[in-house]
Amino acid sequence: MSSEPADPDFRPHRVVVLALDGLLPFELGIPHRIFGRPKDARGRHLYEVVTCSIRPPGPVETDADFAIQIEN
Amino acid sequence: MSSEPADPDFRPHRVVVLALDGLLPFELGIPHRIFGRPKDARGRHLYEVVTCSIRPPGPVETDADFAIQIEN
Repeated sequence: MSSEPADPDFRPHRVVVLALDGLLPFELGIPHRIFGRPKDARGRHLYEVVTCSIRPPGPVETDADFAIQIEN
Repeated sequence: MSSEPADPDFRPHRVVVLALDGLLPFELGIPHRIFGRPKDARGRHLYEVVTCSIRPPGPVETDADFAIQIEN
């Protein structure tokens, strides 16, 4: 998106994904697959997908043997 | 599995999942969903799913806006 033409009226929709302890990594990945790819005719991402925790940035536990490192 | 009866001949199959940078969280979660649940008639997990990195334990990047914290 660094070569994106300047357009003050364009803003992608923001999709916020809330990551809670015990989450299923399988499910956490779905919104990124669905919303992370669509672009308009000028190649701009239509959605901005942001994964958030209810705590300060840090690890969120999953139901698997690894944690997710959340930045937001 | 803490109340599992002692049985020296029983060992679950070990499934090792290799996590590489740029992985899709969606896909990383699939083997845990498939192999993490089956149990035998005595309630013992039939599979042990272990997620590993090719590096020492630490973060592995995904295609989403979070990293995976690998312990193995």
